[in-house]
Amino acid sequence: MNSNEVIANRALEILGHHRGEYEYLHPIDDVNRSQSTNDTYPTAIKLAMSFTLATLVDELGLVADAFAAKGREFRDVLKVGRTQLQDAVPMTLGQEFTGFAHTLGEDQQRLRDTLPLLAEINLGATAIGTGITADPNYAEAVRRHLSDLSGIEMVTAPDLIEATSDAGVYMTVSGALKRSAIKLSKICNDLRLLSSGPQAGLGEITLPPRQAGSSIMPGKVNPVIPEVVNQVAFAVAGADVTVTMAAEAGQLQLNAFEPVIANSVLQSLQWLTRACATLRVNCIDGIQANTARLAQQVETNIGVVTALTPYIGYAAAASIAHTALATETSIATLVVAAGLMSKDQVEHVLSPARLSGLEAITSSIPVITAEQITKHLASLDAAHADETTG
Amino acid sequence: MNSNEVIANRALEILGHHRGEYEYLHPIDDVNRSQSTNDTYPTAIKLAMSFTLATLVDELGLVADAFAAKGREFRDVLKVGRTQLQDAVPMTLGQEFTGFAHTLGEDQQRLRDTLPLLAEINLGATAIGTGITADPNYAEAVRRHLSDLSGIEMVTAPDLIEATSDAGVYMTVSGALKRSAIKLSKICNDLRLLSSGPQAGLGEITLPPRQAGSSIMPGKVNPVIPEVVNQVAFAVAGADVTVTMAAEAGQLQLNAFEPVIANSVLQSLQWLTRACATLRVNCIDGIQANTARLAQQVETNIGVVTALTPYIGYAAAASIAHTALATETSIATLVVAAGLMSKDQVEHVLSPARLSGLEAITSSIPVITAEQITKHLASLDAAHADETTG
Amino acid sequence: MNSNEVIANRALEILGHHRGEYEYLHPIDDVNRSQSTNDTYPTAIKLAMSFTLATLVDELGLVADAFAAKGREFRDVLKVGRTQLQDAVPMTLGQEFTGFAHTLGEDQQRLRDTLPLLAEINLGATAIGTGITADPNYAEAVRRHLSDLSGIEMVTAPDLIEATSDAGVYMTVSGALKRSAIKLSKICNDLRLLSSGPQAGLGEITLPPRQAGSSIMPGKVNPVIPEVVNQVAFAVAGADVTVTMAAEAGQLQLNAFEPVIANSVLQSLQWLTRACATLRVNCIDGIQANTARLAQQVETNIGVVTALTPYIGYAAAASIAHTALATETSIATLVVAAGLMSKDQVEHVLSPARLSGLEAITSSIPVITAEQITKHLASLDAAHADETTG
Amino acid sequence: MNSNEVIANRALEILGHHRGEYEYLHPIDDVNRSQSTNDTYPTAIKLAMSFTLATLVDELGLVADAFAAKGREFRDVLKVGRTQLQDAVPMTLGQEFTGFAHTLGEDQQRLRDTLPLLAEINLGATAIGTGITADPNYAEAVRRHLSDLSGIEMVTAPDLIEATSDAGVYMTVSGALKRSAIKLSKICNDLRLLSSGPQAGLGEITLPPRQAGSSIMPGKVNPVIPEVVNQVAFAVAGADVTVTMAAEAGQLQLNAFEPVIANSVLQSLQWLTRACATLRVNCIDGIQANTARLAQQVETNIGVVTALTPYIGYAAAASIAHTALATETSIATLVVAAGLMSKDQVEHVLSPARLSGLEAITSSIPVITAEQITKHLASLDAAHADETTG
Repeated sequence: MNSNEVIANRALEILGHHRGEYEYLHPIDDVNRSQSTNDTYPTAIKLAMSFTLATLVDELGLVADAFAAKGREFRDVLKVGRTQLQDAVPMTLGQEFTGFAHTLGEDQQRLRDTLPLLAEINLGATAIGTGITADPNYAEAVRRHLSDLSGIEMVTAPDLIEATSDAGVYMTVSGALKRSAIKLSKICNDLRLLSSGPQAGLGEITLPPRQAGSSIMPGKVNPVIPEVVNQVAFAVAGADVTVTMAAEAGQLQLNAFEPVIANSVLQSLQWLTRACATLRVNCIDGIQANTARLAQQVETNIGVVTALTPYIGYAAAASIAHTALATETSIATLVVAAGLMSKDQVEHVLSPARLSGLEAITSSIPVITAEQITKHLASLDAAHADETTG
Repeated sequence: MNSNEVIANRALEILGHHRGEYEYLHPIDDVNRSQSTNDTYPTAIKLAMSFTLATLVDELGLVADAFAAKGREFRDVLKVGRTQLQDAVPMTLGQEFTGFAHTLGEDQQRLRDTLPLLAEINLGATAIGTGITADPNYAEAVRRHLSDLSGIEMVTAPDLIEATSDAGVYMTVSGALKRSAIKLSKICNDLRLLSSGPQAGLGEITLPPRQAGSSIMPGKVNPVIPEVVNQVAFAVAGADVTVTMAAEAGQLQLNAFEPVIANSVLQSLQWLTRACATLRVNCIDGIQANTARLAQQVETNIGVVTALTPYIGYAAAASIAHTALATETSIATLVVAAGLMSKDQVEHVLSPARLSGLEAITSSIPVITAEQITKHLASLDAAHADETTG
Repeated sequence: MNSNEVIANRALEILGHHRGEYEYLHPIDDVNRSQSTNDTYPTAIKLAMSFTLATLVDELGLVADAFAAKGREFRDVLKVGRTQLQDAVPMTLGQEFTGFAHTLGEDQQRLRDTLPLLAEINLGATAIGTGITADPNYAEAVRRHLSDLSGIEMVTAPDLIEATSDAGVYMTVSGALKRSAIKLSKICNDLRLLSSGPQAGLGEITLPPRQAGSSIMPGKVNPVIPEVVNQVAFAVAGADVTVTMAAEAGQLQLNAFEPVIANSVLQSLQWLTRACATLRVNCIDGIQANTARLAQQVETNIGVVTALTPYIGYAAAASIAHTALATETSIATLVVAAGLMSKDQVEHVLSPARLSGLEAITSSIPVITAEQITKHLASLDAAHADETTG
Repeated sequence: MNSNEVIANRALEILGHHRGEYEYLHPIDDVNRSQSTNDTYPTAIKLAMSFTLATLVDELGLVADAFAAKGREFRDVLKVGRTQLQDAVPMTLGQEFTGFAHTLGEDQQRLRDTLPLLAEINLGATAIGTGITADPNYAEAVRRHLSDLSGIEMVTAPDLIEATSDAGVYMTVSGALKRSAIKLSKICNDLRLLSSGPQAGLGEITLPPRQAGSSIMPGKVNPVIPEVVNQVAFAVAGADVTVTMAAEAGQLQLNAFEPVIANSVLQSLQWLTRACATLRVNCIDGIQANTARLAQQVETNIGVVTALTPYIGYAAAASIAHTALATETSIATLVVAAGLMSKDQVEHVLSPARLSGLEAITSSIPVITAEQITKHLASLDAAHADETTG
């Protein structure tokens, strides 16, 4: 309503009249003609979201690129993979960072999927979708004009009654934003875990220091950039609940709660875009691998025993793992000592490239017979009996 | 782990051995061969979701069909449209129900969009996505076999490290379910509003009675079916938060919180499917229009004045509306009496088909001049002055 | 860290030194002495919340007072009560508004309950709660000083390790804010329902008009104030999810996500406070009862039959209600005509004061015998048989 | 409605009549007399919640006790405290577990705070709170009877109109449950972090093994019990959103969505209670400290330098910390070597009891003068210059 008056008065001035001389140009009869808040407002929101979303998609792509670059950089850095925070089987740090790149690439696509939905508008159907007061040709004319102006191919909704009250697209956009936010948060949790320490933590990577971390603990550097991304993600997840409740509250021919939807979604878009930029520039690009520590962790890792199970069986492998942990002896040594595999065979299977799945294992390694394994387990049982009775 | 033992023992029996004679067939070395919980479990979840989702898509389609049928049945029933719960401009009850059908059709499509994402599996990459212990040909072989068995064309994820810990697809599915649930809830809110009364409410439609409504208020019939759908929607929205937090909690090479994700999403799927069925059978199909009341509401509705604004201008229309409400006179009568339009012109513009936008208005109606409107408004002002001074 | 430098430099200037001459006064060794971000930051947040919350409690009290005043104004206005949006039994509009006042009074108390929790601080236990670097007397000295300055009796947490990482109080505050917000939203939903129309809605009350409602529908007045309160409530509910996720994300000796918690809670506090003020001033104070319409609704309401069930039984009452609705005859007339109660008895029981429970019913009205009711029902069945065979 | 019939028929049988002979005892007129679903249903829900909540409070207390016992057991085990996952200053493992006990004790109190709110009932005010059809003495009589039966002192709500539609108490209970759930989740996250490894993780504690962790990784033990508690917490947080939306959806004189509220809250109560029991019995009670590893981490930890800042200043401390990390020399050695403190002084300040704040530091240690520190820093700068030019 206010814009109508501002536009009318400015137009009157241009036409050589005084402000308020509405007999020449009327804020409602002329400026607002064929329009209603109920079709212009959602159209404006969708345009705003489309533009902002395109920027986010680009920024997210740059984050994915940055992770991919690190993935290449860390391509040969072997490390201990972990499931449920427990040491598992080996992989490369490059695979981990490439995975971050890949997952964000998928999120980019999910965000892009929502753009055509945002291009569907209800301009021209005015108050409730029946087009009352609008010229029958208005909807198509304004759609074409808006498409030209925005560079986005807008589409007039097929059911304009439905389109006037429908808030579905906002839920879809908010859901896609939440997915991206949660993925970024999971990745930032991982970065914080991997960089924990420097001594009494995982200590696999070092994040670039961004500020003196502590007024009380000299030398402490905190992962402030990933933490800010986590916080943005929590805000985006909260905003999604706001959007959900507002969408549910629509009644009959209108959803009167679009303002809080617009506010929530546009804030999520803006915060996520900024979070991506700071994460890339102030964190990812400067990440360094602590190769010495990584190598040492792999060396003592008993998870490599998994790679031998196809040859020596689960039971023998479990027993070897148990002994390795208790005696601090390497898996390879124990397997060879037990006569289960030759040194060459073990080295072949336990090569970094094969452990990380980047290279296939030569199938010529003979699988040990059940008989041999049983014999080995029996000898272990005997040894164990000696131990406990000894 | 337990299934492995059950399968091994059953197989041993079939092979003519005793249970537990694992030297012939081992639960882990043979049955579990090439598999890990970390690839079989998510694959099983995705299959379960795909099948359940397909059923929901069908049920939602039947709900849309039921609304579309009612839309046709109520095609000619004119009613007062409402925005912000305030009387607005006219429409037909058929348009309202057709809108319900249309919006659920869109949700069906959003749900279908998630099916290809659910078909992406990580079978064969075992513990963390490196494929350790699995035969290099296993992934493709099992994918083909599973596709044949399920009738769903499964796809092996391009980045198996990423796929092992990624919970993105569950968020997308949960988000699409939430969207459908919220739409159904909004529709059920509308059904409850439209059937409110029977006397001191909107009273536009009557829902089929499903149970004696009250132990204390004889004759009362409550909208219990829409209410149960509302409650399912609230549960689905809550489940989405559970899924979000579980997805965020994934760490490093695994998301260990898939059980609560599976439980939440599968419950949402099941409850929504049942909600659709009961809504259709026990409510929509039996909805009746209270045509007498609807007609009476349209008759006294001042919102029709909007249809005249292109001809008489906003200011004159607002003044006519004010007088109509105060004097309980019809808009048409007042406009003709004021000499702003002829009786024929008014009847043409205010015909049901034109009011509801189903038929275009003949453009030959002369738009009243600004001069005429100004004159009318001046006469109204004079009358108003008389009134207040009289 | 930055404040320390600003304070140190300003102090140096006051002491007659140049900025940066830290040998005289050091930003960390002197200004920051005995402090850590990990104890000062949460203390500052809690002070900010305490002050803002006190203002909200006051504003909420004013809203409750405004509703109570309307409750008194509408004390004698009889209306149809509604459950599940269906006409139920009578009550007064005063009871409805008094209920709004009462429920907000309870919320005020729930908010007040959180103030003592906010007064518990961890100042003095520095980095992780062990008090490292702080003088043993510092905690008590700063607590006393801060209590004097703020006028709030602060308490040092009994377990300072626990207090350093604990975010429980924020969840409690956010939960209490959400409760108040949801209550306000429910009330605003009711105000919007009760003011729906003006013709084709409940039309029980009129909200004061606050802006021209529509650029396209002349004369339309929208409930914009209650709608803005609804939207604030949705934002508060979303913020609670943000706070929840941030609280859950705390790790080991610290919750690093307090900034987003502070931002979310303080925004909820501010928005709710403003929502209360605008709701009171721009809406509640100007609400008017549409007494003519309310009286007419009560007159034709069949819900009054409930009041007669103790005398004529449920079955007879249900049959009377059915007849009243079908024949548009009043309940009182039908009951007297059926010989079930005398005119005096009916009028006594159906008096406004007794219907709304404000006055007890004289117990001397004879309860009709089962025999009489059975006879009446039999006669109705006979009449019904005539009708359907006739 | 169904219960009324069941009770009536059973009573008829006892009275020597046949089922259905309602002239002797009527399901509604007699059994349901003075009652409405709208007052009996919420009263039943509140009783169910009160009983279940009391059990949860007890179970949570047992968890707190179990943590307190571990706190005493680990009283003297020094460890590295961590903020933002980065090594910080020392503390004891006992302090950490005592903190868990303390925080859950607070949650117990928050849960107990809700019990009086649950004891407020609306029995006797029937359909909408006006008490229509109920004997004026019924409310007090049934309240007294129910209090005797349940052992809970029930209170009749002061405003029965308000109480009939109010869902505030459910939000308060759900919020308190969520707070407890989130606290338990944070603690379980900590347990999973502290037990991560066994080699390439923090490895501070060992959780009791509960099942063979992996079908593919022999010897792997997963923290399945804390993980199930995490998942319960996510479900409780989701349920809170369901409760919120259902509470907001109440309209006018009733909240028709109490069934989903009851289902959600009672599920949260039951799941949390079971989560507490399994956490205590299957996890906490069997936790062991990896004392060798903990001691080794403290030894090389540079965080102890914080304890020296009051004596040598922040700048000198930061420089010492930097050197310690680069040269893998202990802080104590460096400080003494630099002549900043004597060996005795350092040992006094760095004693475990003083580091963990359990014992105050003797104030007689002379604080080093600014002059001495400046001299030391200058010597370091000189050394650094040598290094970089050398």
